[in-house]
Amino acid sequence: MTYCVGLQLERGLVFLSDTRTNAGIDNISTYRKMHTWEVPGERALVLMTAGNLATTQAVVSLLEERNLAPSERDPTILSAPTMFQAARTIGQTLKDTIVQQREGGPTAGTTFNATMIFGGQIKGGPARLFMIYPEGNFVEAQPDTPFFQIGETKYGRPILVRAYDAEMEFTQAAKLLMVSFDSTIRANLSVGTPLDLQIYETGSLRLGTSRRIEDSDPDWRAVSDGWSDALRRAFDSLPDVTL
Amino acid sequence: MTYCVGLQLERGLVFLSDTRTNAGIDNISTYRKMHTWEVPGERALVLMTAGNLATTQAVVSLLEERNLAPSERDPTILSAPTMFQAARTIGQTLKDTIVQQREGGPTAGTTFNATMIFGGQIKGGPARLFMIYPEGNFVEAQPDTPFFQIGETKYGRPILVRAYDAEMEFTQAAKLLMVSFDSTIRANLSVGTPLDLQIYETGSLRLGTSRRIEDSDPDWRAVSDGWSDALRRAFDSLPDVTL
Repeated sequence: MTYCVGLQLERGLVFLSDTRTNAGIDNISTYRKMHTWEVPGERALVLMTAGNLATTQAVVSLLEERNLAPSERDPTILSAPTMFQAARTIGQTLKDTIVQQREGGPTAGTTFNATMIFGGQIKGGPARLFMIYPEGNFVEAQPDTPFFQIGETKYGRPILVRAYDAEMEFTQAAKLLMVSFDSTIRANLSVGTPLDLQIYETGSLRLGTSRRIEDSDPDWRAVSDGWSDALRRAFDSLPDVTL
Repeated sequence: MTYCVGLQLERGLVFLSDTRTNAGIDNISTYRKMHTWEVPGERALVLMTAGNLATTQAVVSLLEERNLAPSERDPTILSAPTMFQAARTIGQTLKDTIVQQREGGPTAGTTFNATMIFGGQIKGGPARLFMIYPEGNFVEAQPDTPFFQIGETKYGRPILVRAYDAEMEFTQAAKLLMVSFDSTIRANLSVGTPLDLQIYETGSLRLGTSRRIEDSDPDWRAVSDGWSDALRRAFDSLPDVTL
C-alpha cells in the first residue's frame, strides 16, 4: 500500500508521501514515491505515485527518457508548454506502460495499475494539481475539492476534510498532513515512515522546502504523540449524550 | 454499505448501527440492522448485521424460527445455554444461509456474504462481544481489542482507537460512537441516519437504554456540529512544524 496527499493552498502546493512498499506483508521495502523536476525560474514539478512499483518506476524512467543514452536525455515533461500538457504526457505514459505490461506473457496475481498525483507550475500558467488515473485521464483540484489522496485514503481523510483551510500557512499544512499520515500509519501496517515532504510556493517557479521525515523526527514525534491527547481533549469538550 | 460498532466497557456493552441499505447508489432504503432479544433476569442479546440484506434478514428469521407456525416459535438463541453457544448457532445459521443462496439458480452480481456483531449476557456467564464471519466462525473482544466494527470501518476508526477507555461512562461511550459515525457518514453516502443505539449494563440481564437517533436529534447535532470546531482547536493546539 501507499499513502500520498497533495494539497492546494492559496499560497501554493504541499505534498507528503510515505515510502513503504510491500508484496505481501512479509516482503516490505522502502522506496521513494515522490519525484521532482525543476528548471529554476521556468518550472517546478512534483509527481507522487501509488500502485504497482514496476509500473510507477517504468513511468518515471520513461518520463526521464532513460531509454536514451544519458547524453541524449531531455525529460519530456520538462518540454511540456503547460501543466495540462505535462499531465497528459504522464497520463499517456502511465496508460501505455500498463497496457504493455498486460500484453502477452504470464499475468501477475496483482494488477499493473497505478495512480498518481501531479502538481506544480510552468511559467505563464497557474500552479495546478492533478490526480492521474491508470486509464490515462485525470482530474484537477478545485476550491471545492482542494486536495487529492492516493493509496490508503480513508483513515486520514476526516481530519483533512475538517481542518483544511485554503489560507493556511505551509507550516500548518505540513502539520495537517502529518496528522492525517499519523492516523493512517497507526491503522495500516503497509503505510510507513520515513515520509517525504515537498513545498511549492505559487509563483516561485522553483521547488521549495523539501524534507525527509524519519520516525525519530522531532516534529513528527510532537504530532504523533500530541495528537492523541489533543483528540481526547477535543472529545471531552463535546457535551455528553443524554441516555 | 453499513456501519455498526460494538464496544465492550467495564460496565457493559454499547452498540450503534446505521440504517441505510443500498443496491447501487440510486436505490437506497432504510432498514433496521440491530436486532435484540430479551428474557428479563435471564438473558439479553444484541445482533447487528452488515452485508447482503436478504442473507441477514433470512438469518434473523431463522434464528426466530419464523419458518414455524407462530404458536410453535421458540427462538433458538433464547435456548442457548451460553453466549458461546448462541454465537455458534448464529454463525452456523449464517454459513448455511449463504451456502444455500449460492447453490444452483442464477448468481447475483454481488456476493451473498454478511458479517455480524453479537453481544450480550446469559445468566451464569459474563457479558461477551463477538464478531461473526460469513464462514460461520467468530472472534471475541478482549481488553487489547475491545470493540468491533463492520461495514465501512476505516473513516471512524482513528477516533475509536484514540479515545476509547474501558472505564468510560455509557454517556461518554455513546458520544464516542456518535463521533465515529459522524466521520463515516460525512465520507460515505452509503452510511446514513437514523441510527440505533443500544446499551447493555453488565449483570442487569435485561436490555438497557435503546434509542433511535434521527438526523435532527439534539445530541447528534451537538456532536456533528461541535466536532469540527473541537477538531480544529485540537489541531491548533499542536505545535507547528518547522520548515
